[in-house]
Amino acid sequence: MDAVARARSDGADLVVFAEQAISGVPAYELLNKVNFLDQCEDALVEIASCCDGISALVGLPVQEGRRTVSAAAFIQNRKIMGYITRRHVSERDDAPFLYAGRGREFIQVGGQTIAVVVGEDIMYPDEFSGHVDAVVNVGSSKYARQRIEKRYERFGNMAYRLGTNVVFVNQVGANTDVIFDGSSAAFNGEGKPLALLAGFSEDYRVVELDGSQPPVEIPYQDKTRNVYNALRLGLGDFFRKNGYTQACLGLSGGIDSAVVAALAVEVLGAENVRVLLMPSQFSSDHSVEDAMQMVRTLGMQYDTVPITDVYRTVVGAMAPVFGDRTEFGVTEENIQARIRGVLLMALSNKFGHILLNTSNKSELALGWGTLYGDHTGMLSVIGDVYKSEVFDLARYINREAEIIPENILLKAPSAELRPEQKDTDYLPPYDITDSVIYRMIEEGQSREEIINAGFDAEVVHKIYAMILRNEQKRRQFCPTLRVSTCPFGVLRVMPITSKYGF
Amino acid sequence: MDAVARARSDGADLVVFAEQAISGVPAYELLNKVNFLDQCEDALVEIASCCDGISALVGLPVQEGRRTVSAAAFIQNRKIMGYITRRHVSERDDAPFLYAGRGREFIQVGGQTIAVVVGEDIMYPDEFSGHVDAVVNVGSSKYARQRIEKRYERFGNMAYRLGTNVVFVNQVGANTDVIFDGSSAAFNGEGKPLALLAGFSEDYRVVELDGSQPPVEIPYQDKTRNVYNALRLGLGDFFRKNGYTQACLGLSGGIDSAVVAALAVEVLGAENVRVLLMPSQFSSDHSVEDAMQMVRTLGMQYDTVPITDVYRTVVGAMAPVFGDRTEFGVTEENIQARIRGVLLMALSNKFGHILLNTSNKSELALGWGTLYGDHTGMLSVIGDVYKSEVFDLARYINREAEIIPENILLKAPSAELRPEQKDTDYLPPYDITDSVIYRMIEEGQSREEIINAGFDAEVVHKIYAMILRNEQKRRQFCPTLRVSTCPFGVLRVMPITSKYGF
Repeated sequence: MDAVARARSDGADLVVFAEQAISGVPAYELLNKVNFLDQCEDALVEIASCCDGISALVGLPVQEGRRTVSAAAFIQNRKIMGYITRRHVSERDDAPFLYAGRGREFIQVGGQTIAVVVGEDIMYPDEFSGHVDAVVNVGSSKYARQRIEKRYERFGNMAYRLGTNVVFVNQVGANTDVIFDGSSAAFNGEGKPLALLAGFSEDYRVVELDGSQPPVEIPYQDKTRNVYNALRLGLGDFFRKNGYTQACLGLSGGIDSAVVAALAVEVLGAENVRVLLMPSQFSSDHSVEDAMQMVRTLGMQYDTVPITDVYRTVVGAMAPVFGDRTEFGVTEENIQARIRGVLLMALSNKFGHILLNTSNKSELALGWGTLYGDHTGMLSVIGDVYKSEVFDLARYINREAEIIPENILLKAPSAELRPEQKDTDYLPPYDITDSVIYRMIEEGQSREEIINAGFDAEVVHKIYAMILRNEQKRRQFCPTLRVSTCPFGVLRVMPITSKYGF
Repeated sequence: MDAVARARSDGADLVVFAEQAISGVPAYELLNKVNFLDQCEDALVEIASCCDGISALVGLPVQEGRRTVSAAAFIQNRKIMGYITRRHVSERDDAPFLYAGRGREFIQVGGQTIAVVVGEDIMYPDEFSGHVDAVVNVGSSKYARQRIEKRYERFGNMAYRLGTNVVFVNQVGANTDVIFDGSSAAFNGEGKPLALLAGFSEDYRVVELDGSQPPVEIPYQDKTRNVYNALRLGLGDFFRKNGYTQACLGLSGGIDSAVVAALAVEVLGAENVRVLLMPSQFSSDHSVEDAMQMVRTLGMQYDTVPITDVYRTVVGAMAPVFGDRTEFGVTEENIQARIRGVLLMALSNKFGHILLNTSNKSELALGWGTLYGDHTGMLSVIGDVYKSEVFDLARYINREAEIIPENILLKAPSAELRPEQKDTDYLPPYDITDSVIYRMIEEGQSREEIINAGFDAEVVHKIYAMILRNEQKRRQFCPTLRVSTCPFGVLRVMPITSKYGF
């Protein structure tokens, strides 16, 4: 409502809000609840009542017949004139809950003809080419690594090819795992940017589409900074929108929990982040010392709870069951990780701190985490970030001061669940391993393609088998802030029961 | 291939396989993998090579352009004549992975004209009405409570209205959580059933569509028996198709774990089911005794591992963290449940038994389980079965002999996580609570509708709030055998971050 008033006083003819601005995205099952849709309509009527002497496009879900479609309501001078509805619904979060609408429509505003398209309909320019003064996309495009620069390029090219203004208005903010980066933009018919709105925060801009406005420069998009900002927005909105204030996590002295702790302190404040140090007999001295140094630097509340006694009691209780199978193995490694899960959840339950998960995407791909152990948490902060990117994030966090102890960045990654364990015991260093995983997951390359690109065949087959085998674990993983086009989780689903690939 | 040979030797003109018979359903991401689609095509070519002197319809996913559609390949005399592709793709498991095809097409077989429709296209009879000798549906319709009888009714009515034969060929078997019940059927133009194939197992039948075949009777469909058979099929196929043989679970002396144990023994054999009894200080004598009686009756391998020592060690380790918050509460209840999770997973890791989850749908709705505690498991057997239905299943299991001790059916349900705890401490008995949950979840009724139907307003609001609040827990739950139209889990998704309803 404030935005409408501001736009009117700035003399704008049309104010545009994002796709499903009223409902939030994704609304999943709510899109099929009549009383939810009624509430959305009530909000629309209230917005319309403010549109005195101004037109508006407002995204919301509406029912046509008994089918819910994603629409942009067109409001003119306080009257809801009609709805432009989205035709293409292949986007995965929405697809099971939305039906296809009619696609682009033309509206007349201030003597100009504008083609309005909702959501991914903008990907089908053949459907709205023809002479118009502008194309307006009421959009909701999620953040993904390097997507901002790709979007700029695509919209610029589209505007140039269509020879008309293209205005893209995006959602901004996060809903649990889904992050919208904003970065709304307007391009003129020469493909030049007229306005580039803020990324990762709300923004407002008046754009003249009559050719009078000079183009602006596209600033450099730093990949790591954008991922960092996306995670910061995602973490912040998860807490703010759910009414949470305090977080907890386990701090191991490794880089993953260090990065998550630094992000949490940045977003929530040190006074709202509480950590547990849970050393075992296999924890190295430097791990405990590195963790302690971070606690001191950031000023977080911490407790040290060694897990050795609990571990011995569990193994003792199971001794009659295990019988002569007393050799130390994966079972015993997992017991340690699960005890840590029990202790963290106990802290969370007792004081109401929201447990943050600290797994990274490389581990999730390879199945190196322990289900119900280090897989615990209400939100995974870096579960869509490769291990090598976690190092990038750590360096970015340390750009001005040593927040994460340098030693954590330098030492070899280890789960420290058995003596002298290193992540590289079984696979090559992360720069190689991550490249292979990235090609498989994000680029959908086959084993043959990856081997032909020069990677070791044995390593490729090993990683491939590990990824396939661990779908079961990933299926029970917590919601994960998404920063890639192929996040594991609810919607990147492989069959658990499958002979494929073996 | 055997079926083709058999059909040919029986003199059939056309042999029909189910939708995606070659790929399995749901194949999720695999539907976008080129080498998977290639393997499906290879299998089709092999089937075609056997179709000497016979026509066939075989379901598989195919690519049209770069878009994967669900198709029925039409084979005539060893030649693949073409593909009929599914037009309507709203079914939730498939929707994000499949594009819309062209819909029904006509084929000529043995001098007859047949309309072929794939999958849910059969729900749109307006699109294939007109004069044909038969409608054949290459289908994959999941099992859900009472769906078999509804399907018979729908197909009978459809055949009557169209005035022609309607043949429905369904998938049979389970893939992780999804269960196909088979129950293929043929109806003549008077709406009378000509053939009703087996439910929950593979079957084969030759049907004459020239009016010469007399109709058959529709047998009585016992609701509990069908649910039991669905769970049996689901559990069996999960183990068989994944190459698993042995299961483990926690046996508490309550009805949920009793029913799961009985099902597991029925499906896998007593020698392949291993149970842990994990009493705490709050376990009643009768619970341990009832569990022991079941162990003896079924002859399962068992161990008793009291959790008291581990519980004391955990609480002792956390004592400095808890400080003066020493009162016994939800934290302490959850610690007990989570220790049981740790012990069960240790058993599973050590010996390779697959852990079966024993939560029921009422608990999952209300959030009464403990995340990482009794929520652990690779497969939830009764997570889509209401508590009151669990009692029905127990009585069905006991129909010939007392497999589940009668005392378990008679005593009041309790989590036994604190002294004298009963499930009815907080909510009415399960027949009432389940009715309210059922109306909310399966029938999508609003609070007002349920209160108007005569339920206590306070109870309705309480249950409603509990269901909404616990989406977060359900999101991390294990795959669940589905026997309802509204199973929780991967595809029945509400936003976690939402102000809706509060």
